[in-house]
Amino acid sequence: MLTELESALTNFVTVYHKYSLEKGNAHALYRNDFKKMIEAECPQYMKKKSADAWFRELDINSDKAINFEEFLILVIKMGVLAHKESHK
Amino acid sequence: MLTELESALTNFVTVYHKYSLEKGNAHALYRNDFKKMIEAECPQYMKKKSADAWFRELDINSDKAINFEEFLILVIKMGVLAHKESHK
Repeated sequence: MLTELESALTNFVTVYHKYSLEKGNAHALYRNDFKKMIEAECPQYMKKKSADAWFRELDINSDKAINFEEFLILVIKMGVLAHKESHK
Repeated sequence: MLTELESALTNFVTVYHKYSLEKGNAHALYRNDFKKMIEAECPQYMKKKSADAWFRELDINSDKAINFEEFLILVIKMGVLAHKESHK
């Protein structure tokens, strides 16, 4: 059985693949896939920054796609915010 | 209602606080708290590296405690592994 932490990690991978597999390339979240994901999965993180702005920020190697490692940067940023929120 | 991604994020914060609050300081996971957490929450990540080795690696500012941001580094590393596993 998975622990709470392991389930959370598995969920990240599942969410990423759910959108990246739409175009058949499991390791690339293209601009439209990414927009769909962020709008559906983390609407409150779009309040201050648009999906396009997030995309530009995360696409570190400028290959016009978000790979899993780049996606994890979003996870970290959201994690820091979620932690702040928890202390409000 | 929380999305799948948001629930996963909330779980990270919950797991961190579950162990950090044991000593009354919500922002510090001391060596023993950390060891308890990693043994209970991610046993398979201990196979190649001991809890003490993880602790030394994550305690970037050498204050003998893991803060939430340092904890997120563990999350990233586990995320990369979980992603690799998903493609095996």
